Amino acid sequence: MLKAFIDVPTDSHFPLQNLPYGAYQTTDGEIHLCSAIGEFIVDLFVLDEEGLFDGPELNNQFVFQDSTLNYFMSLGKPAWIEARTTLQKLLSENNPRLRDDASLRERVFKKREEAEMVLPVQIGDYTDFYSSEQHARNVGSMFRDPENALLPNWKHLPVGYHGRASSVVISGTSLHRPKGQIIPQDAEEPVFGPSSLLDFELEVGFFTGPGNNLGEPVPVDKAKDHIFGLVLVNDWSARDIQKWEYQPLGPFLAKNWATSISPWIVTMEALEPFRAELPAQDPKPLDYLFQEKPTTFNINLEVFLKTEQTDIPQMICSSNFRNLYWSMTQQLAHHTITGCNIQPGDLYGSGTISGPEAHSFGSLLELAWKGTKPIKLTSGEERTFLEDGDEVIMTGFAQGKGYKVGFGEVRGKILPAR
Amino acid sequence: MLKAFIDVPTDSHFPLQNLPYGAYQTTDGEIHLCSAIGEFIVDLFVLDEEGLFDGPELNNQFVFQDSTLNYFMSLGKPAWIEARTTLQKLLSENNPRLRDDASLRERVFKKREEAEMVLPVQIGDYTDFYSSEQHARNVGSMFRDPENALLPNWKHLPVGYHGRASSVVISGTSLHRPKGQIIPQDAEEPVFGPSSLLDFELEVGFFTGPGNNLGEPVPVDKAKDHIFGLVLVNDWSARDIQKWEYQPLGPFLAKNWATSISPWIVTMEALEPFRAELPAQDPKPLDYLFQEKPTTFNINLEVFLKTEQTDIPQMICSSNFRNLYWSMTQQLAHHTITGCNIQPGDLYGSGTISGPEAHSFGSLLELAWKGTKPIKLTSGEERTFLEDGDEVIMTGFAQGKGYKVGFGEVRGKILPAR
Repeated sequence: MLKAFIDVPTDSHFPLQNLPYGAYQTTDGEIHLCSAIGEFIVDLFVLDEEGLFDGPELNNQFVFQDSTLNYFMSLGKPAWIEARTTLQKLLSENNPRLRDDASLRERVFKKREEAEMVLPVQIGDYTDFYSSEQHARNVGSMFRDPENALLPNWKHLPVGYHGRASSVVISGTSLHRPKGQIIPQDAEEPVFGPSSLLDFELEVGFFTGPGNNLGEPVPVDKAKDHIFGLVLVNDWSARDIQKWEYQPLGPFLAKNWATSISPWIVTMEALEPFRAELPAQDPKPLDYLFQEKPTTFNINLEVFLKTEQTDIPQMICSSNFRNLYWSMTQQLAHHTITGCNIQPGDLYGSGTISGPEAHSFGSLLELAWKGTKPIKLTSGEERTFLEDGDEVIMTGFAQGKGYKVGFGEVRGKILPAR
Repeated sequence: MLKAFIDVPTDSHFPLQNLPYGAYQTTDGEIHLCSAIGEFIVDLFVLDEEGLFDGPELNNQFVFQDSTLNYFMSLGKPAWIEARTTLQKLLSENNPRLRDDASLRERVFKKREEAEMVLPVQIGDYTDFYSSEQHARNVGSMFRDPENALLPNWKHLPVGYHGRASSVVISGTSLHRPKGQIIPQDAEEPVFGPSSLLDFELEVGFFTGPGNNLGEPVPVDKAKDHIFGLVLVNDWSARDIQKWEYQPLGPFLAKNWATSISPWIVTMEALEPFRAELPAQDPKPLDYLFQEKPTTFNINLEVFLKTEQTDIPQMICSSNFRNLYWSMTQQLAHHTITGCNIQPGDLYGSGTISGPEAHSFGSLLELAWKGTKPIKLTSGEERTFLEDGDEVIMTGFAQGKGYKVGFGEVRGKILPAR
């Protein structure tokens, strides 16, 4: 078993098997790319400057001296694997290079708790899918017809839409409750005011690496070579604004005021041991979406709520990435089938990940069933939607034998409307 | 009257009153920002390198030595006005500085016809509105109910959705007919194949300059300071793909395979003399959208179709930017009201600009009324939607006294499906 010379607690999200990518602001105000091991971040800028990424793919490429991962992402799997292998060697207990160089160690390792993380990617485009069957059924049942909860296209294609890239923010960003147009019950004219049906959506997003040329779709069986890694996503939603605005062109302001992501991008290489089967797909997808055995990943996902009256966040949802109906490779093949070009650093949300059980629903809309079944908290409080001061904390991890490959968390607090 | 030392024909789109911004690829393969005068482009990189942008806002800023306009756009109106004034002086007939420097002139002026134009902006996010009442009524009549053609929200807010920024391409880019999922008439299962209902959409887009912070809406009366300039937009659409995919989250693949824009960004300063009234807004918009006299611009817009059997493009649509119901400042105030942040270089399409008369409808869907009234061309051909080899050419200009402020054109040809 791989072991680092840094002590890693067994419940840590960041053992030597993980090595996710992020970025932090140094005390000098510079942005450095970094990885994580145990309680520490690993400054990749310093390691790169030291010439330690000296394999054939990365030598003299200075990829970790950029302030974003976009160029590294564009290089593809051989470079990604080489960087991972280099890092694992540098951090392993039997390699003296970094272990025994106290001065270098001091520049490379920083306490993770103290690091101010920033977005590690310049996100070009952000797409959001809608790929959990249970979520689509729940929403369809609530707003349309329980007998025909899924729209006719849902099992034929991974429904998705374009989101707003500029308002993707890093975990820890507090957000003011948005104001907008809302249509009161039975009214014909909208009013302007703060959203009162504020919600989270539990999602996982993937970042693309190498892109394709406009007009040249990515085949489903090649799509995995374009996927760099995954983050946790909270796709904040103002349900009352959404209800009034979304016909006929889809959600717009209800979603574009903020989307929070976790600071660490967990690579596909780290997740490979946790590959799992997708639910059976019936009807059989069209050829361009068909995979003999489309796969997904076994990633536990949890949502916690911390109100102003409580000190300890309370778990309100426990779901799993496996609950998605469509695979990431199918999403990407679909996204490009008309010729749309993807680029390094584009982000793709899964859609709300709801499982079949009531406690696995990935939004308050579903957990409190459109306000009809308030969630009871141990503090005695109830929630149907988010209130001012509420903090939503999402976490996720894959469970290995004796170790976890984790995402850390994405958290965000709702401040009062301005 | 302003007059340049370069001869400008009276029907030119590019007199001294215009001075739009673009970018071209030099014979050395470099990207230089440029403007246009008469039959020539004006290399701004060379002028900047020569130190000729020496006013207080731009001196030593090297804004035109970038390969995109984003930084210049971020500087705001004082810099934009200074650049325009500097250029007008440099090009005016009574200023010897450039006029009498043959060697500099040779480096600065290139034949516009020979220049290979490229996108002058790194587009962060692309939003598309739906702001022509006639277009919304036409589509609503065709696909829903002629008696209730407008959805209830339409007159209360400028409906919009997020588009795909990566696939915005420059005029002249040819495009392969996209393939995708299509639901045949009366079928329950989709088939895969080339779109047979391929369409253009006549739009005008604006680019934003200075942005706002997340959570801080742009007030409607301040919005004009954030708008840099306008381009022509062809929002290509695959109607059959759109019909099957768009419920419930809006258009996705039907639109994201390409959006073409004209190479020249016409500035708000150049368009100021052509300010015009908007149609009356009833009901009165909510306060955050209300302007005593919201204004627009009088810009003639024309669409030409050139088939493989014809040499001369035939005009099939004549519309005007004034046909929009919502102003650009209202669109921007709405876009940011929930707190969404805009950035320099973001693009915003108007939506298809259809006027009240049948010849002013801005798409084939409307011109041939869902395929029921084929357009008859002088070649004897008919069209309901675009066929392979068809080239769509859009142009636009504001008519001054003895001069035009024009956009040039945005053109694109449909190649057979791959």
